[in-house]
Amino acid sequence: MQYPSKLIENAVQEISRLPGIGKKTALRLALHLLKQDVENVQSLSDAILNMKIHSKYCKKCRNLSDFDICNICSSKLRNHELLCVVEDTKDVLALENTGHYNGLYYVLGGVISPVNGVGVMDLNIDGLLEKFPNSEIKEVILALSPTIDGDTTAFYLSKKLKYFGLKISTIARGVQVGSDLEYVDEVTLGRSIQRRIDYESAH
Amino acid sequence: MQYPSKLIENAVQEISRLPGIGKKTALRLALHLLKQDVENVQSLSDAILNMKIHSKYCKKCRNLSDFDICNICSSKLRNHELLCVVEDTKDVLALENTGHYNGLYYVLGGVISPVNGVGVMDLNIDGLLEKFPNSEIKEVILALSPTIDGDTTAFYLSKKLKYFGLKISTIARGVQVGSDLEYVDEVTLGRSIQRRIDYESAH
Repeated sequence: MQYPSKLIENAVQEISRLPGIGKKTALRLALHLLKQDVENVQSLSDAILNMKIHSKYCKKCRNLSDFDICNICSSKLRNHELLCVVEDTKDVLALENTGHYNGLYYVLGGVISPVNGVGVMDLNIDGLLEKFPNSEIKEVILALSPTIDGDTTAFYLSKKLKYFGLKISTIARGVQVGSDLEYVDEVTLGRSIQRRIDYESAH
Repeated sequence: MQYPSKLIENAVQEISRLPGIGKKTALRLALHLLKQDVENVQSLSDAILNMKIHSKYCKKCRNLSDFDICNICSSKLRNHELLCVVEDTKDVLALENTGHYNGLYYVLGGVISPVNGVGVMDLNIDGLLEKFPNSEIKEVILALSPTIDGDTTAFYLSKKLKYFGLKISTIARGVQVGSDLEYVDEVTLGRSIQRRIDYESAH
C-alpha cells in the first residue's frame, strides 16, 4: 500500500507489529490517533514506554508489581501454604477475579514450547525450585492451560517438585459451566465421563 | 479488575481508549510489549507521537502529506479536471489501490452526523467550495459511504456545488462483485433491478 506520508507509514508499521493487529487495523488506529488531541496521544505514548522501562517484578512470585514484594506475597491474609503456578500475569488476574483462591502465586513467564523455541531455561523455573525444601508451602497447584505445551510444562514441573514431598494438584478438567454437551469436544467429554464426580460435590 | 501494578493499569487504560480495543485486548497488548526489547517499545511510542506532532495536510486536498502540496495534487500525470470527494485518508488509499482512478481527491475529514455531533462546520467543506468557480475541475465525484450520514453529506454538497455548473456524480451502487444474490439486502437488490444496466457495459 502507498501511504500518503512517511510518518503515518512508520506509525502503521509499528502498530501492526502488535499481535492480532494487521495493516488495515493499524491504519484505522493511526488515523484515530491523528484526530485526538496531542495530550491524549502523548499520554498513550508515555504510558507504554513508562510501563516498559519502570515495571518491576515481585522477587517472590515474579508477577508484575510496583514493589519488590507484591501485595499478594506480602499479605498476611493469604494462605502461605498454597502455591499456584501460572503461565503469566493474565492468569493471576483471571484467578483473582474468581474470588475462590486465597493462596500465593508463582508466575513462570511462559510454558515450555519447542515449536516456539521456548525451553526450560527461558522460564522462571529455577526460582520456583529454589523455594524448596525450606518453605511453608504444602501444596503446589499447577494451573497451566490444558494444551500440549501447558501439559508438557506441568509434567516437567511435577517431576521436579515431587522430590520435595509436596502435594501436587492441578485445576479440574471437565465440561465448562454453561456449555452445551453436543458441542463439547470428544476428549473433554470422554474424560469427564470416565472421571465423573459425586453429584453433591459438583454444586 | 485489580491490576498488579499502577504502570500496567495506566498502560491498559490508555491502550483501551483506542477504538475496538477493550480492556482484555489492551492487557494482552501491554503484556506483549513488556516482553519486547526497550528499543521496540521506544520506536512504537515515538512513531505514534511523531506522527501526531509532525503530520501535515496537503493544502489543496487536505489529505495527509509530508509536503505542503501532496504527490497526487502536484502530479502532472493526473487528470486535474476530475475531483473525487472522500471522507478520509483510508478512502483515498482504497481508491488508489483499485488503480481505476486518475483524478484528484478532496478529503472532507468526516461526514455530517448529527448523532455524533459532527456538523457542517467540523468538516473541510469551505476549502472545497473555495476552489470554485476559478478551477480546472469539470466533474466532482461524491464518493462517500452509502450510509445515512454519507448520503446526507453528499446531498448537502450536491446542493452547494450545483451553482458552479459542474458535473456531479457518485460511485455506482448495486450488488457487489462476488456476492450471492440470496444474501444481498433488499434495498440494494431493489435499486439494482430498477436501475439495471446494459449487459455489455457491466463487464
